[in-house]
Amino acid sequence: MPEAASAQPTRAPIGASEFDRDTAVTPREPGVYDIDLSAGWTIMNAVNGGYLLAVLGRALADALPHSDPFTISAHYLTASRPGPAVVRTETVRTGRTLSTGQASLFQQDEEGREVERIRVLASYGDLDALPDDVRTAAEPPAIPPMGSASVPRTVPPRRRQLRHHRTPDAQARPVDPGMGARTAVGQGEMRAWFGLADGRDPDPFALLLAVDALPPTAFELGLSGWVPTVELTVHVRSRPAPGPLRVSVTTRNLAGGFLEEDAEVWDSENRLVAQSRQLARARL
Amino acid sequence: MPEAASAQPTRAPIGASEFDRDTAVTPREPGVYDIDLSAGWTIMNAVNGGYLLAVLGRALADALPHSDPFTISAHYLTASRPGPAVVRTETVRTGRTLSTGQASLFQQDEEGREVERIRVLASYGDLDALPDDVRTAAEPPAIPPMGSASVPRTVPPRRRQLRHHRTPDAQARPVDPGMGARTAVGQGEMRAWFGLADGRDPDPFALLLAVDALPPTAFELGLSGWVPTVELTVHVRSRPAPGPLRVSVTTRNLAGGFLEEDAEVWDSENRLVAQSRQLARARL
Repeated sequence: MPEAASAQPTRAPIGASEFDRDTAVTPREPGVYDIDLSAGWTIMNAVNGGYLLAVLGRALADALPHSDPFTISAHYLTASRPGPAVVRTETVRTGRTLSTGQASLFQQDEEGREVERIRVLASYGDLDALPDDVRTAAEPPAIPPMGSASVPRTVPPRRRQLRHHRTPDAQARPVDPGMGARTAVGQGEMRAWFGLADGRDPDPFALLLAVDALPPTAFELGLSGWVPTVELTVHVRSRPAPGPLRVSVTTRNLAGGFLEEDAEVWDSENRLVAQSRQLARARL
Repeated sequence: MPEAASAQPTRAPIGASEFDRDTAVTPREPGVYDIDLSAGWTIMNAVNGGYLLAVLGRALADALPHSDPFTISAHYLTASRPGPAVVRTETVRTGRTLSTGQASLFQQDEEGREVERIRVLASYGDLDALPDDVRTAAEPPAIPPMGSASVPRTVPPRRRQLRHHRTPDAQARPVDPGMGARTAVGQGEMRAWFGLADGRDPDPFALLLAVDALPPTAFELGLSGWVPTVELTVHVRSRPAPGPLRVSVTTRNLAGGFLEEDAEVWDSENRLVAQSRQLARARL
């Protein structure tokens, strides 16, 4: 989608963007990292789950001998708040092709006790070392092209917008300027263009954000309110090419107060670069 | 599918079947369990990943205040062997509706050192406490009915059969007596009836087995050989009704030497009782 790239007047490079600053972890000792969770990625006072996953993903990338998340599974324990946090990692196994690690993010409660917010298990590798073979039956989702009248711009999942687009009334508007090309395509499915507000190109950590950046599909199913994630697993399948991403999120089954959200992320070269599934609770 | 139930001459009750005996864990101390991994669930000398998940799932059901796995994510580190193993669990968080735990399975190597085989993170709850609401767009897979000429019996994922049906030549036979109604329905998809050989009805732990019991979809994609699981996450969505299960496994994207396998499990009352996704390595 080169037209999108050229439409961005300035474009923050990978490593020097808002997303990079807000996910930067500072080593305190081997395997332990400090992070100041930015208030810019909150929804209803809770920090976005995809942003948290990117933070934990960067800590593990530093701690493990491999730098790219291939599969990362997160269990969300308590709601994170903006502010200081510490990430403690453990190297579980190192191998030639894959390494496995564990990481937890902690914050202090009002009495100064450490409370665990989220715990992940992940296997890392080197995306650039993978062979080029692709055999796929998957096709990119149909989304109106960026630049069309109903699609004013790429999705900026930042600050006000991210805080906003999770609110229940978001679904009332067929095109939300804060959501770019978000289109409801029937019960339980959402599709959107996704890009960082400062034009930074996607990398594997931005994919961890992208899978959880759309409004809950539960809104399309007629539910409203908070849909907390219980567990979220992301598979990064390829390093994304520069340019905007397309994201589709589908819920097929809401039952017993729980629903799954399946996300697929496609890059500008029409490759399926990430798949995710989360189990979320619906407050009925 | 009552005809299947009546066709079973004897039917082991839940708790007293081969599957229950082979997944029984013995508490050694609080949170630590001994298990003798049965040789009956091996494929090419490696113990089946779904069987291992059921073992870890039972240990966590004992260790946590809730007894039903809602979501369980497993990272497979080294190949398990039949024989003694120890499961060490950690209670991560306990809540009113959900509890989260971690568990690892270890075996000793030839020098007597403990080697970690598999690590899981899981959130448990009470399936019977969930409300009855269902809003679903998911439909059971089409499979020829059991009892038809091409479908001799339910799937017995045990001993010889399980060892057999992962071998590369399994795909050559459109109907494998060891696989029941396994039918290839096009590239990258498998469907089968699934039941335990001794007629034991399914429970949530049998679902953990069911999602990984079919031959790899990679065989349908023209690959052969071992397709080791890197990570497997299962969501148990409902307690299965008595009677045989239907399982569909789909692979849409093989790229860079990795593929996903998405499994859905349906019970005899046409409910989607489990969803799973695994990331596996294809030896090209």
